[in-house]
Amino acid sequence: MEAIAKNYRLIRSLSAPAICAAVVKCDAYGLGLGPVARRLSEEGCTNFFVALPQEAINLRDSLQSLRRKHSIYILSGMNDDFKDICDESIAPVLNSLEEIKLWRTYKDLVASGLPAIVNFDTGMNRLGLDRDETEQVLANTSLISPRYVNFIMSHLACADDPTHKKNEDQLDRFSNLVNVIGGRFKYSFANSPGVFLGSRFHYDMVRPGAALYGIGCNSKDRKKLSPVVELKSEILQTRSVTTGETAGYGADGRINRPSRLATVALGYGDGLFRHLGNSGRGFISGQAVPVLGRVSMDLVTLDVTDVPETLCKKGDWVEFIGAHQSPDDLADSAGTIGYEVLTALGNRFRKGYLGTIS
Amino acid sequence: MEAIAKNYRLIRSLSAPAICAAVVKCDAYGLGLGPVARRLSEEGCTNFFVALPQEAINLRDSLQSLRRKHSIYILSGMNDDFKDICDESIAPVLNSLEEIKLWRTYKDLVASGLPAIVNFDTGMNRLGLDRDETEQVLANTSLISPRYVNFIMSHLACADDPTHKKNEDQLDRFSNLVNVIGGRFKYSFANSPGVFLGSRFHYDMVRPGAALYGIGCNSKDRKKLSPVVELKSEILQTRSVTTGETAGYGADGRINRPSRLATVALGYGDGLFRHLGNSGRGFISGQAVPVLGRVSMDLVTLDVTDVPETLCKKGDWVEFIGAHQSPDDLADSAGTIGYEVLTALGNRFRKGYLGTIS
Repeated sequence: MEAIAKNYRLIRSLSAPAICAAVVKCDAYGLGLGPVARRLSEEGCTNFFVALPQEAINLRDSLQSLRRKHSIYILSGMNDDFKDICDESIAPVLNSLEEIKLWRTYKDLVASGLPAIVNFDTGMNRLGLDRDETEQVLANTSLISPRYVNFIMSHLACADDPTHKKNEDQLDRFSNLVNVIGGRFKYSFANSPGVFLGSRFHYDMVRPGAALYGIGCNSKDRKKLSPVVELKSEILQTRSVTTGETAGYGADGRINRPSRLATVALGYGDGLFRHLGNSGRGFISGQAVPVLGRVSMDLVTLDVTDVPETLCKKGDWVEFIGAHQSPDDLADSAGTIGYEVLTALGNRFRKGYLGTIS
Repeated sequence: MEAIAKNYRLIRSLSAPAICAAVVKCDAYGLGLGPVARRLSEEGCTNFFVALPQEAINLRDSLQSLRRKHSIYILSGMNDDFKDICDESIAPVLNSLEEIKLWRTYKDLVASGLPAIVNFDTGMNRLGLDRDETEQVLANTSLISPRYVNFIMSHLACADDPTHKKNEDQLDRFSNLVNVIGGRFKYSFANSPGVFLGSRFHYDMVRPGAALYGIGCNSKDRKKLSPVVELKSEILQTRSVTTGETAGYGADGRINRPSRLATVALGYGDGLFRHLGNSGRGFISGQAVPVLGRVSMDLVTLDVTDVPETLCKKGDWVEFIGAHQSPDDLADSAGTIGYEVLTALGNRFRKGYLGTIS
């Protein structure tokens, strides 16, 4: 938990004087919405982003005991049934003129409460006002009023590659918006890797998610972050096998020399991806031990031939995420990214937080 | 829920007179331990398998209200701290002579309670008595006593491929055990695909997991099973894009013709694997709509150009698992198996069960 707080302080200092919000969707990237958000609130974070209405409600409940004022924004847009959810601490991110109109009608009925954010697409083509709608707003800026909207935002598609030309394309389109729409609103543009692209990308509020959890960005920037997650599991059994034998489902683990195997209580049911079969690795006392054969639902078998027997007996622990392997390292072996490693972590662990939590 | 019950009845009829147990580890393969186990109990299932001690405790609690006698076996073996868990309904699967000794000592202290199962490895090389230990038992069968053990089991590695020669190898090794150890114990060998290998593989108790949930096995046998899971999500926004544009992170979704895109509220944070980027598909009114670009944490963008606009507006639903795409079909697109599709399903859905549940 101290590591998340430390990452938050780092990103805030890199992006000051911009406000530093926190993206805590998907159960704070799998790490636990309540504890993470409360710790960030204690660091002074007051703006939070989630994906779904239910996440916003859960977050509001989690933060209530702190008796501070928080702003929670729902990235997935505005629906009719949001009327029951939005209040002085929850508002949607509006992704179309239709959603803006819906929100305006609602706000005419309910004058108080948190103003919304309007999201303009600048090249991600996922959510946000499209090119036509953007032109309509640029031609008639009174389509959005500060009476019910406080921030204008957009989302970067390629910021983890600082050399990608799309970053400057998107910045051009966003800065044109800022120039035309002007100072009646505040602006938010950078996600985690966007923070590291420099102050031109920061505007009034940055929205880091991944960087808080020590993942994502490019490998150079990631080194500045504190690692947040450790994942270990226990050896259930070891065995000796001879050349020509096989291990695991499909007989896919080939034994090419007299070997010792260790079967560990961790599998794809816990988020250790099947794509790590015959390609991932764990660490015992800092020494890499390769996955042998397929990953099972609850179990994975490691080749521990090169590790002294005294270090890998039943009951000894194997590191899968930690000092020797980051979430992004593990993701590389599975052909994915650290984000998916974290959100895939299951519910069968004993989860412990280090440091102060509320 | 009716589908699971129907699959249970099918497997039981295929394997009769063998007892039909149920494997409900990993939250009943992600589908909900309590409701699934209670439904199976009502079908007459009294033997359950889980992976971990905590799962056994949760299962015992879930079944308590039914006031029937159940036997719950923990596949991951025996530990010192199991002493606090085992009782008249929970016992371990013992994977080594050391674990057998530990269990015997425990049972000498506590005479009552459920007897354990001993697991012999016959070629999976994952858990179970290894070749040396097996030979010790074959030479001296009094190493195991019916006083504290009721079943002898082994686990098939390649049963989903009925032509794999390992199936007969494992059967040979297991039947040798049965012949030498003899009638003092009952025997269990077949997992789901093992049930379909025929009665030679059934012995006294079969242990289906996957087949109950309509997945796994080979494609021919799978057709006999009822589909169990439906996964749908909602379109949040649609947009028109022009040739040369890109969509999503890394600008990886290439637009090669004037297109309409739909962004749906489902992402890898919900278990829609990132490996489905530019390769998976959803279904709208039975028509396939390909994933365009990378899957995000909470969102996926589909190319809906070929579907009438009236069928894909904001608020319309897209099927990802259902009549047109089984968990195993979706898994194929992601380079994995239906098992991992189910266990990866997240906690952000509204989960509903069809049919009677307790």
